[in-house]
Amino acid sequence: MDEVRNYRAVVAYDGTEYAGFQIQVNQATIQGAIEKGLAKLGLGHVRVHGAGRTDAGVHALGQVISFQTDWRHGAEALERAMNAVLDPAIAVRQVSPAAEGFHARFSARRRMYVYRAYAGRVRSPLLDRFACHVTGEPDWAAMGEAASLLVGEHDYAAFGQAPWGVNTVRTVHRAEWRVATSDMAVGAHLFQFEIEANAFLRGMVRRIVGTLLEVGCGRRSVQDVASVLAAREISRAGVQAPASGLCLWRVDYDAMDVVGQDRDEHLLNGQ
Amino acid sequence: MDEVRNYRAVVAYDGTEYAGFQIQVNQATIQGAIEKGLAKLGLGHVRVHGAGRTDAGVHALGQVISFQTDWRHGAEALERAMNAVLDPAIAVRQVSPAAEGFHARFSARRRMYVYRAYAGRVRSPLLDRFACHVTGEPDWAAMGEAASLLVGEHDYAAFGQAPWGVNTVRTVHRAEWRVATSDMAVGAHLFQFEIEANAFLRGMVRRIVGTLLEVGCGRRSVQDVASVLAAREISRAGVQAPASGLCLWRVDYDAMDVVGQDRDEHLLNGQ
Repeated sequence: MDEVRNYRAVVAYDGTEYAGFQIQVNQATIQGAIEKGLAKLGLGHVRVHGAGRTDAGVHALGQVISFQTDWRHGAEALERAMNAVLDPAIAVRQVSPAAEGFHARFSARRRMYVYRAYAGRVRSPLLDRFACHVTGEPDWAAMGEAASLLVGEHDYAAFGQAPWGVNTVRTVHRAEWRVATSDMAVGAHLFQFEIEANAFLRGMVRRIVGTLLEVGCGRRSVQDVASVLAAREISRAGVQAPASGLCLWRVDYDAMDVVGQDRDEHLLNGQ
Repeated sequence: MDEVRNYRAVVAYDGTEYAGFQIQVNQATIQGAIEKGLAKLGLGHVRVHGAGRTDAGVHALGQVISFQTDWRHGAEALERAMNAVLDPAIAVRQVSPAAEGFHARFSARRRMYVYRAYAGRVRSPLLDRFACHVTGEPDWAAMGEAASLLVGEHDYAAFGQAPWGVNTVRTVHRAEWRVATSDMAVGAHLFQFEIEANAFLRGMVRRIVGTLLEVGCGRRSVQDVASVLAAREISRAGVQAPASGLCLWRVDYDAMDVVGQDRDEHLLNGQ
C-alpha cells in the first residue's frame, strides 16, 4: 500500500460560473470540481480543504488548498494530471508536498483579497468579468481615507458574519485603494482595493467595498465608516459590492508549514 | 415624418459567445444583436455596417458601426437607449451623428488589431478569456524582428483571403510586439502584438500571429517569414492563432467624415 501524503496547491479560477468554493448539493463548486478531478485520476474520494470560502461568482488568483492522497508520481506530475482533467476555468499551480499537520484553512496566517472597480461613462465588456463598473468618478482619495480607518484589530460585526460560536474580531493589516493597470481599460479609470487580514468574516470584503463606494459617491462621509465599524450593526453598512470584482489574491503561511517551496527541492528530498 | 440621419458609434464587445460580427442565420452575431436592439427601440429594421468583420470569438474595443435612422432624441439618448437593450457583452460608446456619406467600412482609413499572448508554466483562468496561453518562453525579440518584415505595401495572400475579385495587396503601417500590462498576469509574461493596416484580409492577423509564434518557439526562422510572404501561398503560413487573443482595437477615419465632435475629442480615432 502506498504512503498517504499531505499536499498543498495554489489554485486560480474564474468563479463566474461557479456557486462558490464550498461544496453544495446540485451546484457547481470549485471544491466539488477539484474533488471530482482527483477522483478521475483514480485517487478515490479525496477531501479538499480551501483557505478561503469564496462566494458564488468570486474569483481566485491564489486560493490555497490542501489534501491527502497516495499519489505515487511526484508533485509535478500531479499538477499536470490535475490540470489535464479540470475545467479550463480552474488551474492548479505549485502543487507541493506539505508538512504533516498543514491545513490550507487552519494553518493560514494571512489572506489578501483584491477588489477591482472601474469608473467609466459606459460599462466595458472587456473589464466586466473581473471588475465592477461604477458610474461617475468616485472620490478615490476619500475612499482611501475611509479604508485606512478599518486597519487594526477590531470587531468587524458591521461588515460580516462569523460561524456560530466564533467571534467577529479580526486584524486588518492593510486596506488601500490604488490605481490598477490593464491595457484594456481604455476610456475607464481602473482601481483596485487591496485588503489583508489574518482572516475575514463572511461577506466582509464585499460589504466593506460597498460601503467605501458609497463614500466615493458622496452618499456617506469618511467619518461615517468609523461610526459603522463602531456600531457593529450589519444593517448600517453598505450593500455588498458585486461578486465579479472580487478575487482571493494570496494566502500566507508560516514557512515551516510548507515542505520545500520549490519543486526541484522536492525532487532532491526523494519525492 | 422625421428626418433620417446617419450615425456612427464605437462598439466594444466580449466576442466569446458570438459567431462573429457579421449576421448569419440561426447564429448569435454582434451585428444581429445590435440590429435587434435598434428594432426594440422602435426604430424598425435598421441595417448596421461594421468597420471590421471580426470572426467568431474575436473581441472588440473600438469596432465602429454606421447606420441610418430617424431617432429624434439626440445621439446621447440613443447611446443610453442602445446600452439599455443590448446584451451586457456588447457596449456602445460615443454614438454621434455622421456625415451623410459616412460608412463604417468603406470610409475607414486604418484599422488596428491587438493580439494578446502570455507565457506561463500553467494557463491562467484570469487571462484566458482575452489572451492566448503559450507554453515555454517564446523568443519575443525574434518575433518582433519577424513582424517588422511584414511592414509595408505587400501582397499578403500568404496570410489571408480577399473577397472574390478583390486583390490581396494591403499596406501594413506597423507590426510589433510589446510587453502588455495587467495586474492579473501574475506568474505569466503577457505580451501583445499590435498591427495597423489600411485594411486586413480574412484571417490575416491570426495567421500572422500563428506564424510569428512558430518563430518564437524556434520552429521557424525569422527569415522564413519573409519567404512565406514572398511565396504568397497560404499553405506555407502557420495555423491561425486562437480567436480569444484577438481584439479589434481601433478604426481611424478622415476627420471630415465625422460630424459633431462636441461629444468627445477621442471621436476621431475611434478610441
